[in-house]
Amino acid sequence: MPQDRYAVIISNFGNRADRFLSGYGEDRRLAQLFEAAARVEGLSGVEIVGTWHITPRNVDEIRALLEQYNLNLVSIIPDHFASQVYSRGAFTSKDPAVRARAIADTKEMMDIAAELGCDLVNVWNGQDGYDYPFQADYLEERAWLVEGLRACAQYRGDVRLSLEYKLKEPRTHSYLGTVTGALLTALEIGSPNVGVTIDVGHALMAYEDVGESIAILKRAGDKLFHMHFNDNYRLWDDDMIVGSVHTIEYLELLYWLDRTGYQGYLSLDQYPYREDPEQAIAESIQWLRAFRRVLDRVGMERIGEVLRVGDATSASRLLREAMWGTAA
Amino acid sequence: MPQDRYAVIISNFGNRADRFLSGYGEDRRLAQLFEAAARVEGLSGVEIVGTWHITPRNVDEIRALLEQYNLNLVSIIPDHFASQVYSRGAFTSKDPAVRARAIADTKEMMDIAAELGCDLVNVWNGQDGYDYPFQADYLEERAWLVEGLRACAQYRGDVRLSLEYKLKEPRTHSYLGTVTGALLTALEIGSPNVGVTIDVGHALMAYEDVGESIAILKRAGDKLFHMHFNDNYRLWDDDMIVGSVHTIEYLELLYWLDRTGYQGYLSLDQYPYREDPEQAIAESIQWLRAFRRVLDRVGMERIGEVLRVGDATSASRLLREAMWGTAA
Amino acid sequence: MPQDRYAVIISNFGNRADRFLSGYGEDRRLAQLFEAAARVEGLSGVEIVGTWHITPRNVDEIRALLEQYNLNLVSIIPDHFASQVYSRGAFTSKDPAVRARAIADTKEMMDIAAELGCDLVNVWNGQDGYDYPFQADYLEERAWLVEGLRACAQYRGDVRLSLEYKLKEPRTHSYLGTVTGALLTALEIGSPNVGVTIDVGHALMAYEDVGESIAILKRAGDKLFHMHFNDNYRLWDDDMIVGSVHTIEYLELLYWLDRTGYQGYLSLDQYPYREDPEQAIAESIQWLRAFRRVLDRVGMERIGEVLRVGDATSASRLLREAMWGTAA
Amino acid sequence: MPQDRYAVIISNFGNRADRFLSGYGEDRRLAQLFEAAARVEGLSGVEIVGTWHITPRNVDEIRALLEQYNLNLVSIIPDHFASQVYSRGAFTSKDPAVRARAIADTKEMMDIAAELGCDLVNVWNGQDGYDYPFQADYLEERAWLVEGLRACAQYRGDVRLSLEYKLKEPRTHSYLGTVTGALLTALEIGSPNVGVTIDVGHALMAYEDVGESIAILKRAGDKLFHMHFNDNYRLWDDDMIVGSVHTIEYLELLYWLDRTGYQGYLSLDQYPYREDPEQAIAESIQWLRAFRRVLDRVGMERIGEVLRVGDATSASRLLREAMWGTAA
Repeated sequence: MPQDRYAVIISNFGNRADRFLSGYGEDRRLAQLFEAAARVEGLSGVEIVGTWHITPRNVDEIRALLEQYNLNLVSIIPDHFASQVYSRGAFTSKDPAVRARAIADTKEMMDIAAELGCDLVNVWNGQDGYDYPFQADYLEERAWLVEGLRACAQYRGDVRLSLEYKLKEPRTHSYLGTVTGALLTALEIGSPNVGVTIDVGHALMAYEDVGESIAILKRAGDKLFHMHFNDNYRLWDDDMIVGSVHTIEYLELLYWLDRTGYQGYLSLDQYPYREDPEQAIAESIQWLRAFRRVLDRVGMERIGEVLRVGDATSASRLLREAMWGTAA
Repeated sequence: MPQDRYAVIISNFGNRADRFLSGYGEDRRLAQLFEAAARVEGLSGVEIVGTWHITPRNVDEIRALLEQYNLNLVSIIPDHFASQVYSRGAFTSKDPAVRARAIADTKEMMDIAAELGCDLVNVWNGQDGYDYPFQADYLEERAWLVEGLRACAQYRGDVRLSLEYKLKEPRTHSYLGTVTGALLTALEIGSPNVGVTIDVGHALMAYEDVGESIAILKRAGDKLFHMHFNDNYRLWDDDMIVGSVHTIEYLELLYWLDRTGYQGYLSLDQYPYREDPEQAIAESIQWLRAFRRVLDRVGMERIGEVLRVGDATSASRLLREAMWGTAA
Repeated sequence: MPQDRYAVIISNFGNRADRFLSGYGEDRRLAQLFEAAARVEGLSGVEIVGTWHITPRNVDEIRALLEQYNLNLVSIIPDHFASQVYSRGAFTSKDPAVRARAIADTKEMMDIAAELGCDLVNVWNGQDGYDYPFQADYLEERAWLVEGLRACAQYRGDVRLSLEYKLKEPRTHSYLGTVTGALLTALEIGSPNVGVTIDVGHALMAYEDVGESIAILKRAGDKLFHMHFNDNYRLWDDDMIVGSVHTIEYLELLYWLDRTGYQGYLSLDQYPYREDPEQAIAESIQWLRAFRRVLDRVGMERIGEVLRVGDATSASRLLREAMWGTAA
Repeated sequence: MPQDRYAVIISNFGNRADRFLSGYGEDRRLAQLFEAAARVEGLSGVEIVGTWHITPRNVDEIRALLEQYNLNLVSIIPDHFASQVYSRGAFTSKDPAVRARAIADTKEMMDIAAELGCDLVNVWNGQDGYDYPFQADYLEERAWLVEGLRACAQYRGDVRLSLEYKLKEPRTHSYLGTVTGALLTALEIGSPNVGVTIDVGHALMAYEDVGESIAILKRAGDKLFHMHFNDNYRLWDDDMIVGSVHTIEYLELLYWLDRTGYQGYLSLDQYPYREDPEQAIAESIQWLRAFRRVLDRVGMERIGEVLRVGDATSASRLLREAMWGTAA
């Protein structure tokens, strides 16, 4: 049976800033973020971010909040992007002390995750990249990246590291930019507890077909560890409500999640700058459920048949039927 | 009542080439193209292309084919893109003789259109642009463009000229690239029989919201003269089956066509390289009809309300309900 | 003689944030920003931003700083993007009180500009747009935009309003997105004191050839009022050092500024997230000067000749010679 | 010493078509293509394309032409893109007979290459991909791709297969789309004679920094087998003259070719639709030589230093000095 469990990065309920306006919403205390998550029908898991939400000093508070609101901890996301110390790179900083700290921070978050009964650390090292031509020694920095991540992976095999790729932002170029780039790095690290996170918006921004990205990770030995959901206009990480822009591609990627036996959470990662965050997250869950019902209407077998034939007009007919039935 | 009349550029049924492969399908005689159009359920109009389909010498043949297959002539598209003489520009060629010929050809097609009872000439001057920096004198060439089109427009006021914009291809930059660029040129020409064609794929490629583009032309005094339909991945003019990639944006643009009282045809302009052309066109019509039914389910009033409020989560709910009902 | 006067938006010297990291640099007091500007060789003008730098209460302070550091006030940029009140639109907010306030704020900034001897208000209404399909009533909101800007323009004819267009960010779609879109709006407003600002990065992001954009504004009657300079990778407003990515296109646009007799400042608008701001601005000025010297080496006449012929290989040869001489 | 050997795909001198216009130039016989190549100063190598130029029946003719014009055969490019049989895929066709033929054709070209003293077959399987969502069974087709290429690679170890990736065109999505995607496939094939071709334009279109792509292939064990050169506007494979758009990135990639010890040809792959092909190729060589001189002016050491520091403003200064000297 396909999974139908929804999670969220709890910062989605907090304030949202961009580079011009420091607060679209209002600041909220940690407990309020959990409270908001609990209010959204269908949410059963949360992801929390290092520095912003979790430090070694508030592990008990987090445990209590999880219990109080009956939420599972789906992942911890170490902060490699929101602290000034990492503003010029974390695992690939030119400064060896910063690189060491990135490793140490990640290990610390792995320990905390294990302590909280969570086996997944989602690594989005957004500052590991470069902005300008002639700014980076790609050979050296890529070596640092692999070594740093390997040190973390080998630190404890009971916690999985999932590498979240993104073509750009906050750097103009990220070292882990595409699904195959992230997978290549995961394979080079060579540790079974290293895999890849697909953020749907990041994949779209890299002109990936998300269904194909899922299949690529399946082929490499079940390397899809985690999924983040949102929507965008394909050119930037707009972090919008799921289904607000893309329909067909959401149907296709959910098919491939089922086909490849993905067992993880469907986790929301949005930036509802000008929306009510709870409603924005709730809407995404409703869209994902609606997409699932559309797929159920035709079933895996008939989709598989269409894929085997490869005729776009047959696929088109099947999709219309799936979406609106013959009478539609 | 919104219009529900479908047309096609008949070359869609002919052979398709790209720069690598000269024939994905098979060559077809003119009569076969009309025959194919007649076979597609729902098609009642055709557009034909100068040089490829129509010349002063075969007007009677075209008239006979239109009658035989009971098809309306929706527009003639003068050839400013497929002949070597225009390979370095038509209205903006550096060669005054070529510029004169572009004007003469267009007038000739206006005469033929009128003779065939059609009042629309669709101007897609795809070679009017440039490829390289430091290649074009933009001031001089833009002046030529306006003068040439004005000469055509003033030649006979009973035939409308509709300028079809496209950001690029076959040039890396076209002079008429965006909806506002085309409208600006139309306004500068200053003749009431000059308007704009929106090709949905071209608009998407220019990062336009097609609904907004329709509204922009409405505001300028009903300057939307014609619509071409197809789909793409937003970065290139892939000319795919309608609805194969975009759903929500098709719903939105159909709303705006109704809201602004568009009375023209919904005309298909695809490149079914690897598909059966008749099925590919038929599918597009089925999608357009399905989108219309979705819109009808909620009605203009409720959509108008949502637009007045501007809350993305309310719009999201309404769209889900429109697409799949409350029970979906 | 072509102009060679450089300015900067003084916030370039202050702190830089993005949506993840609230401070890449350090906060600086207003006086420090002026001090920094004064230290950069070649800078003779500044632009200041409403709310951030200028309010009715600190006009005297600004005047004193301008005098102390011997800097000209090139423009005031009213804040339509950095205050929560405008987070859902300024001139196009659904709330009439907000729209009225946007107009009032702009008029106030026009008054202050005049009081400080500056005749240019640069309008970058970055929040006037929309994020989602089915979120905006384009007809109504575009009417509000024109009415609001017209009210400002007619308020006092001795201050010019220059509309700075940008395809997107902070909204996924801006109402003033392209050079022709901004020009159309300026023409619809119908007041001689309304023109357009080209930000080079914004033009690149819209797939414009900046030289052509300059020519388009020239054709419309000297509607290029102001220029902002920075560089990017053509897909997002990266706000990098001038010349760090583009060379040829900078040469071309400077040619067109000279050719069309642009008399304004060359004003820097960057986001040196991870660089020393003073050096980043100084570098941009050095690149602009170097580009100018390259152009001087071949001269306007020979470039004009190449443009008249339109052969890309001749242009290529001339450019190489201009850049590196025959011996290069 | 860095290499300074230039080659060209000889079809660059022949006719050019796009999907609208079947002949921008004129058709030329095979001998004329070689003659043209011989006329371009600096060219010492050619690449030829299966079907278009080479078949088992004209091997002697090709050998004679190579000798007559004193040109080295740099690679053979099997035709997996220009024949109707492959229009729905070559190695990934749904038809097993077509897949078998793609393998057989490639082996045949490997034999011919060896016979002609050339050890490189450049595989650009442009039709291996898909156009529509729900059109391809990614798991099955990717398996076919790897198996097919592996069969070729193992057929004879004395001929190298170099996989040329491209994000899209002629399909909307290619299976080998990015540098890491191609490398992953090469590694999965697991044969030492399989590597990757970087086409600069393809890399730019995928938002790659070409220097980084070179470094990635170096890291994987000298997997950069071949380079194709041209230029574009970063969003499509415009196949323009080298240096006509990008300067800085060409400098950077040449640095990385030297740094990683690339020993292959610099081979031109352009589509001079509206230019004289010989001049267009000659210009590209002149630009590449000019870029090399710029790099020589500062030397590998100083560039290496700047990369180690990673400060964009220092890199900026060094580049200006390299390009135009301190006096510039």
